[in-house]
Amino acid sequence: MDYSLIASMMGRLWSPIAAVGSHWQGRSNVQIAVAIAASSIVPSKPRVSIQIYKNNHSHDMIYGSKAFALSFLGTDQLDYLHRFGFVSGRDKDKLESVPYHTASTGSPILDACWGYMDCRVVNAMDGGDMTCFLGEVLDGRTWSRSGPMWWPDVRRTMPREWNDEWDAKIAGEIALSQERMERIDYSPWKP
Amino acid sequence: MDYSLIASMMGRLWSPIAAVGSHWQGRSNVQIAVAIAASSIVPSKPRVSIQIYKNNHSHDMIYGSKAFALSFLGTDQLDYLHRFGFVSGRDKDKLESVPYHTASTGSPILDACWGYMDCRVVNAMDGGDMTCFLGEVLDGRTWSRSGPMWWPDVRRTMPREWNDEWDAKIAGEIALSQERMERIDYSPWKP
Repeated sequence: MDYSLIASMMGRLWSPIAAVGSHWQGRSNVQIAVAIAASSIVPSKPRVSIQIYKNNHSHDMIYGSKAFALSFLGTDQLDYLHRFGFVSGRDKDKLESVPYHTASTGSPILDACWGYMDCRVVNAMDGGDMTCFLGEVLDGRTWSRSGPMWWPDVRRTMPREWNDEWDAKIAGEIALSQERMERIDYSPWKP
Repeated sequence: MDYSLIASMMGRLWSPIAAVGSHWQGRSNVQIAVAIAASSIVPSKPRVSIQIYKNNHSHDMIYGSKAFALSFLGTDQLDYLHRFGFVSGRDKDKLESVPYHTASTGSPILDACWGYMDCRVVNAMDGGDMTCFLGEVLDGRTWSRSGPMWWPDVRRTMPREWNDEWDAKIAGEIALSQERMERIDYSPWKP
C-alpha cells in the first residue's frame, strides 16, 4: 500500500516523547520512545502500554526486570533527546552526570522532566521487531506546567546535523524492523 | 496512587477518536475507540495497535474475525460519535441507514470520515478487562483535510445531556474494568 495515503493519520498516533528508564543486573539505561498509549479507564488502576524495539539495549533490560519508568521530556529538553535517543546504552553510560533518582521498581527517573510514571510490566506482546509491554503505573507525578515534547515539532526545531544523524540511524532500524516484523513468537509472556 | 498527579500526562496518551468497524458471522458493527497507537516504523509495513474492552460487542467480533477497520471521525461528525459510542451493537444495528462500504477484510468503513485504515490482526495481548490487538494495515486513505476529532475537545462541545449520558455509561464500565483488570490470561493468542 502507498504509505503517503495514511501518513497524516499515522502521524497523530505517536505519543509525546518519553525517556524510558530501566534497571537490570546492576546497570541503568535510558532510551527514547514515542509509542506509548494510555491503557486503563480506571483512575485507581492506571496503566500504559509501550512499544520497545528488540534491537534496543533497554528491551532486554525491561523484559528481564519487568519494569520501566517514563520521564516525559519538556519542550526545552532537546539536549536530553539527543543524549538518550541517538546512541545505544551498549556503547555508553547515557546517565553519566545526568541528575536522576531511582523509582521503587529500581528504574531511573530524570530529576528534570515534564512528568514521570514508574511502571511494573503486567503483560507483553511480541510484534516481531518490537515488544509491546503493558505496564501498571505504581507512582507518578507531573512536575512542570510546560507541555510535553512532540517529535514532529522537534524535527522542525532541532539542528540540521541532528536531523541528518537521525535519518541515518532510523534507516538502519527500519531495515532491521522490516526483516524482523514477520517473526512473531506467539508463545505467552511469563509473569 | 493519586491519579490527579498523572492525569495531565495520561490525557496526552489517548488517540484521536476512531469508529472501529468489524464483521463476523454475517453481522457488522461499529464502536468508538481512543486507545490506538502507531506500531511500525516501516512505511511499507504499517501497523497499529488498538485496545478493545471485552465487554464490548465488537471485542468478540474482532477476536473472531481477526480483523478491524478504523474510520477516524472528522471534527464535524459529532452525530457519529453519539450513534456509535453511546449504545451497544448487541441492542441495535448501529449501521442502519449509515453510508458505509466494505473493506477487503469484510469490516465496514464509513463513507464519510477523516480517513480509514483496514487492518488484519497479527497478534493480541490480554489486559484483563481489554484486549490489545496488533493490526497490519492492508489499505487506507486520508479523505478529508480537516483534522481528526479528539475526546477532550468533544467533551467541551457536545450537548450537556450527552456528557451526562456518557458519565453514566463510563461509570459502569470503570467498575467492570476494575474488577476484571487482574484476571489476565497469559496463554498465547492463536494466529
